[in-house]
Amino acid sequence: MCASASSSPSEELYLDAASTQAAFPSVIKAMLPFWLSDYANPASVHAFGKAAAESLERARSCFASDVGAVAQDVIFTSGGTESDNLAIKGIAMALLTQESQGDAFHSDVPQHYPIHNSGRATRNRIAISAVEHPAISESAEWMAQYFGFHIDVLPVDEFGCIDIDAAKTLITERTALVSVTLANNEVGTIQPVARIAAMAHSAGAFMHTDAVQAVGHIPVDMAALGVDAMSISGHKFGTPKGLGALILRSTTPFEPLISGGGQEQGRRSGTQNVAGAVGMAVALHTALEHRQSLNAELADSRDKLIAAIQEAIPQVRLTGSPDAERRLPGHASFVFPGVWGEALLVDLDAAGIMCSSGSACSDGSNAAPHTLLAMGFDEQTAKTSIRMTFQKPLAANQITTIVRTLKASYEKLHG
Amino acid sequence: MCASASSSPSEELYLDAASTQAAFPSVIKAMLPFWLSDYANPASVHAFGKAAAESLERARSCFASDVGAVAQDVIFTSGGTESDNLAIKGIAMALLTQESQGDAFHSDVPQHYPIHNSGRATRNRIAISAVEHPAISESAEWMAQYFGFHIDVLPVDEFGCIDIDAAKTLITERTALVSVTLANNEVGTIQPVARIAAMAHSAGAFMHTDAVQAVGHIPVDMAALGVDAMSISGHKFGTPKGLGALILRSTTPFEPLISGGGQEQGRRSGTQNVAGAVGMAVALHTALEHRQSLNAELADSRDKLIAAIQEAIPQVRLTGSPDAERRLPGHASFVFPGVWGEALLVDLDAAGIMCSSGSACSDGSNAAPHTLLAMGFDEQTAKTSIRMTFQKPLAANQITTIVRTLKASYEKLHG
Repeated sequence: MCASASSSPSEELYLDAASTQAAFPSVIKAMLPFWLSDYANPASVHAFGKAAAESLERARSCFASDVGAVAQDVIFTSGGTESDNLAIKGIAMALLTQESQGDAFHSDVPQHYPIHNSGRATRNRIAISAVEHPAISESAEWMAQYFGFHIDVLPVDEFGCIDIDAAKTLITERTALVSVTLANNEVGTIQPVARIAAMAHSAGAFMHTDAVQAVGHIPVDMAALGVDAMSISGHKFGTPKGLGALILRSTTPFEPLISGGGQEQGRRSGTQNVAGAVGMAVALHTALEHRQSLNAELADSRDKLIAAIQEAIPQVRLTGSPDAERRLPGHASFVFPGVWGEALLVDLDAAGIMCSSGSACSDGSNAAPHTLLAMGFDEQTAKTSIRMTFQKPLAANQITTIVRTLKASYEKLHG
Repeated sequence: MCASASSSPSEELYLDAASTQAAFPSVIKAMLPFWLSDYANPASVHAFGKAAAESLERARSCFASDVGAVAQDVIFTSGGTESDNLAIKGIAMALLTQESQGDAFHSDVPQHYPIHNSGRATRNRIAISAVEHPAISESAEWMAQYFGFHIDVLPVDEFGCIDIDAAKTLITERTALVSVTLANNEVGTIQPVARIAAMAHSAGAFMHTDAVQAVGHIPVDMAALGVDAMSISGHKFGTPKGLGALILRSTTPFEPLISGGGQEQGRRSGTQNVAGAVGMAVALHTALEHRQSLNAELADSRDKLIAAIQEAIPQVRLTGSPDAERRLPGHASFVFPGVWGEALLVDLDAAGIMCSSGSACSDGSNAAPHTLLAMGFDEQTAKTSIRMTFQKPLAANQITTIVRTLKASYEKLHG
């Protein structure tokens, strides 16, 4: 009874892939022996444990090489949100400690009352874009609340793309850490992360990117991006949920958020999930196979879908970048002025078409998507948003079904 | 190549069950549909997402009822270490914030420089036992380093059991939080947690227990223990690694350590692991079936193993409680004065007998187990420790093999 699976609806028109995907059967198959037979704790000194440690490190190397990183920089985590938290909080805390151990920082506070507060630190600012996932923005708020950091919000243009000139002004010698998402989850915009990273570094700040929507979907090379830290989520590219990674250059100051037995080179404690690491490596490798041709097909589906919807419903407005190079291939997002997005969703769902109003992470709340507000949409319009994301090309008849359903619902609701 | 499983050694004499266990095949089977077909994000508003949310909540209820808790108090996490970190850091931080929002706490600090520091808080002490897992002790140290908490260490007797009189003196109206492990991972001692919880509560402090080695193995009823928070690890009772839970009474102040989309009632953000929750519920239920008769058999094996080793090697000394009621059923641990524990381990491993020198979490380090030091063993003797833990009863010929191998190794090494 605890495990009874619900009857799942048809997946034919699952257009919520940015929210989550199925695990690849080949990934489950690769993980299986590490659950049932080769299950040792890789920290154990016996041969069984050593074999597990070897499997773990082999997976780490494979995974690292598929994102342009080196094995020792990979910290396996429980997912993208944890990775974002470790990055923002861990780097900012470490920088604060570093600075406070330097000169006369807080010298007037009695030594037995250690206070870590950025009030008098030279670098006490965190710069994040206006369209970050809550895992980033809330982590920055946490650092503000508990350690006195100031947050600088990097504005975006109408397509959700970072305003480079504004960023230049806001990233200064007071900035400790910059964090900009590589590909936006709500509108699919791909940010010029390499450019921002160069800007951060010339100001002496560290650079993190949330690459949760990008890794496994578009080419991501950590070395080429030039970032110091990068967050990855497994279930966006074919692992079970509950798996992620933070890639952290060894030169980056870091205070572990999860303390304990000192696993992952002391950067993230807890029994290491060997099966999970294997799953991450195999899924990423699988996701990247034939990626170029798949992405061409996905982009073609996307462009046809967008064109068909625009033709059927002239009032619709595409959100995010119209530039194919600056948009995720399987990502289409819109606002439908005059209707409530959630109402559209319900009609689509009734017809077996599963979409999202923005991000699953904020679904259920009544707030307008902050991403759209930051892009200049008014609150009313922002609440009319629909996101369609897919990891398999759409057939012509599927596009027809989507457009017909959407048009009927729109006309009904718009009245 | 990324996934190639190493040839695993025979598992016949796997005596490292306290470190980790295999997942139950039935658990994998129950999780499978949530990876491959019913994989929706439970935060999605479409029917597919709602079905996932229902499965998640059903698993939560089942799991809660098997540990004497209520569903809304269950926070699913990535494992025991994360749960311990959330509990110690999350509760202590929340208490500090609560207090600082009260009266004149830090009123001389400018408002735009928020400082959270326990220096002047009324309750600025965390009490932990001397035999805690590093996930607890390091979390307490982190709160000391960053928030100025003071740590009181509750001493233990020669069997690793909390000294009640000392605890009475150390737990005071200055204590914010008390944390005592329910069953010790290194020596198997079961602590009088209910008694300590009552003590904590009458001092106005909150009480946490790390029940990682206990849940699934001995009867654990959160309500009967009277604790405010309890950490659980799945892979100790038959789930894949990477799964755990923190049970947190809703009346307990709590600051989330992992910020973001607000899942788990805002207490632990990140896409919820539906398969993982189902795995936790099914594994715990399975582990508890026939537990009473299994535990009688395990205790019988344990007592025979202890007696046979003591007879073969008179110099051996049992560590932990000799009282069957105060010791985990499948747990035997010893010191072998005059030999180095790691050397014994190597010989045992060569004969296919897989044990640990203490905890897998600290294996690889050269330090003497802190648990044994806290119990009064000298450093030299503490380094001679061997732990044998098993979740299947041992046959007579297995006990004979273990004792013969151990005796030969001991005599060789002792010279």
